[in-house]
Amino acid sequence: MKNQRIVLASRPNGEPSAENFRLEDAELSPLAEGELRIRNHYLSLDPYMRGRMNDGKSYAQPQPIDETMIGGTVGEVVESRNPKYAVGDKVVGFCGWQLYATATGKGDVNKVDTTHVPLSAYLGSVGMPGMTAWYGLMKICEPKAGETVCVDSASGAVGSVVGQLAKLKGFRVVGIAGGPDKCAYVKNELGFDECIDYKANTDPKSLNAALKAAAPNGIDCHFENVGGMILDCVMQRMNAFGRIAMCGMISGYNGVPIPMAAPQLILMSRLKIQGFIVSEHMNLWPEGLTELGGYVATGKIKFRESIAEGLASAPQAFFDLLKGKNFGKQLVKLV
Amino acid sequence: MKNQRIVLASRPNGEPSAENFRLEDAELSPLAEGELRIRNHYLSLDPYMRGRMNDGKSYAQPQPIDETMIGGTVGEVVESRNPKYAVGDKVVGFCGWQLYATATGKGDVNKVDTTHVPLSAYLGSVGMPGMTAWYGLMKICEPKAGETVCVDSASGAVGSVVGQLAKLKGFRVVGIAGGPDKCAYVKNELGFDECIDYKANTDPKSLNAALKAAAPNGIDCHFENVGGMILDCVMQRMNAFGRIAMCGMISGYNGVPIPMAAPQLILMSRLKIQGFIVSEHMNLWPEGLTELGGYVATGKIKFRESIAEGLASAPQAFFDLLKGKNFGKQLVKLV
Repeated sequence: MKNQRIVLASRPNGEPSAENFRLEDAELSPLAEGELRIRNHYLSLDPYMRGRMNDGKSYAQPQPIDETMIGGTVGEVVESRNPKYAVGDKVVGFCGWQLYATATGKGDVNKVDTTHVPLSAYLGSVGMPGMTAWYGLMKICEPKAGETVCVDSASGAVGSVVGQLAKLKGFRVVGIAGGPDKCAYVKNELGFDECIDYKANTDPKSLNAALKAAAPNGIDCHFENVGGMILDCVMQRMNAFGRIAMCGMISGYNGVPIPMAAPQLILMSRLKIQGFIVSEHMNLWPEGLTELGGYVATGKIKFRESIAEGLASAPQAFFDLLKGKNFGKQLVKLV
Repeated sequence: MKNQRIVLASRPNGEPSAENFRLEDAELSPLAEGELRIRNHYLSLDPYMRGRMNDGKSYAQPQPIDETMIGGTVGEVVESRNPKYAVGDKVVGFCGWQLYATATGKGDVNKVDTTHVPLSAYLGSVGMPGMTAWYGLMKICEPKAGETVCVDSASGAVGSVVGQLAKLKGFRVVGIAGGPDKCAYVKNELGFDECIDYKANTDPKSLNAALKAAAPNGIDCHFENVGGMILDCVMQRMNAFGRIAMCGMISGYNGVPIPMAAPQLILMSRLKIQGFIVSEHMNLWPEGLTELGGYVATGKIKFRESIAEGLASAPQAFFDLLKGKNFGKQLVKLV
C-alpha cells in the first residue's frame, strides 16, 4: 500500500500555477490503536482553498508549505484498529489531496449511508457545499412568502442547492451563471425561474437590465459567491430590507480584492449583508443534512459533477474551478 | 402674525450653496377645525437633509422644489382649534424651515414635557438623533459583555448618544471625531475611553495605527455615520462576528459615493452590516425615548448644541454641518 500526495510547494502570487504544487510519494506508518486507514475515493475541490494558499489574515490558518493540501474527501475504510469502524465502511472527512489517509477515529471522519445517496454527494449537495447553501439561505436570508431569491455561481455545488432549496420552498429564483449551457441547465434541469448569463452581460448596464427583466419585483434575498460587478449590480436591484448572505467572493481571490462600488445602498435600501463560514455552525449540520439528504435521495435536489481523473489531475482541475470552467461540483476521482 | 419660510430653490450639484435656497414671506390661512398653529422655537439641521435635496432613488421622497424645506422642529402652540392642545403647549414635530406651522393635530406633532428636559433636547438626545443612536446600538449592534464599541462623528448629535449609552451599559467605547477640541470633549466630558482625531490621521496607515492603539482588543460593534476611509479602516479592525450599524455616509453625500475598499472583510471576519432608518421603527420610540429621557434628565447623557440665530442663518449652518464645523447638535434658534 503505497501512498501519494500533493503538497503546497510555494504560495501563488495571483493566479496559482502548477509550480505551486508538488506530487510526491509518502510513507504510511502502521496504525496505532484506535486509528483507521482510509482509501480516498474522491477529493473535493472548492474555491475557499485559494484563500488558504495565502499567508495573510483570514478566518482560517493558512495551508502550510510542504504539507498535504487540505480538502474534503470521501472514501472507504481499508484497515481499522477501531471497533466503531469496519473495513468497507464509507466515510466523509477532511483527509486532503492523497490516496490514503490515517484517521484518529475520534470524530475526524463520519460514516455515511450510500443506500440512497451516492458517495460523492457527501462532498456536494449533502456535504459542506449543501450545508453552506442551506445555512446562508435559511439562517441569513430567511426568505419570506412572495419574495425573490438570487444566487450567482448558480450551476455550482453551492448555488445549485441554494436555488433548488428556494424553489422547493416556493420562492421566485433567479440564477446567474457563465455561458448558455450552464444557464440552460440551471433553468431547465434545476428549475430556476430565470438564469442570467454573466458572460453575455459583461458591463454593469447590460447586467442591470438583465437583472431587472429577470426580477421585475426586485430582489429580496441574495446569496453571494462571486463579488465584484455581479454584487454591485445585484445591490442596485435589492428591495428595501433585503438580505445578502456573503459566502464567497471568488472574483477577487486571485488578485487585488474588488471594491464594493456603492456601499451607500446598504443604507438607502436598509440592507443586511452578513458573511459566514458554515463550519462555524456545526450544531445545525444534522438538521440541514437530514433535509438535504432527503431531497437528494428523492431526486428533488439534482446535482451535477465535473470529475477529474487521478490525483495528478487535481491542480489543473483546481485552476479550472477558479476560472469557472467546471460545471457543477468539482471532484477528483481516485478509485 | 407673519410667516416666513425657506424653500428649496434648486437642486445642488455636489456641495449645496446659498442659491439652492430662497427665504420668502408666506401666508398663514385661518385654522380649520382641529388644527393648531405652532410657533417654531428651534429647527433641527441633520445630514440626511442633503440626501433629500437630490432627485434620485432613496428611501424617502425628494424634497420638492419651491416647497418649505423639511426638518424636525420644536415649538409652542400659539393658537388651537383642537381640544387636545392648549396655547402654550410645547410640541415636537416635523414642521420644516419656517417661523410658524399649521398642524392637523392628528398625530403630526407630539406634546413634550420640559420640566426636566430642555425643549431643544427633543430634537437631539431625546429625539430623532437619540433614537437613531439607541436603535443602531441596541437593536443592530447588540453589544455583549466585554466588547468594544466604536462610533464616528462622536461629538455629534447621534454619535455622542451612541458612546454615552454604550458606556452606561459597561462597554469599552472608542470615538472618532474631527479636531483636538472635539476629541477632548468626547473623552473628558462624555467619558469615552478613547477618541481618535481623524483630522490628525488623514491616511489609512495612520488611522489604522490609531484604531489599533485605541482598540487593542479589536472592535466588535461599530456605528457608522461617515463612510469612506473611516469605514474602511474600522472594518480592518473588526473582530470576527462584528456588527456594523450603517446609519449615515456623510463623506459621500455631496459627490460621487465612495466605494468600500475591502468588502471581502465581510466574509473573512464574518461581519454583519445593516442599514437602517429610525423612522421605520416607530414602535420602539416610546421604549427608547423613555430610557433616553431618563438619562438626559439625570445628567447621565450630556449633550452640546451649536446654535445658529434666526431663520435666515439656516442654509449656512447646514453647509457648515455637512463640513463638520458644528460641535454637537446643530440647531437654528427662531425665538
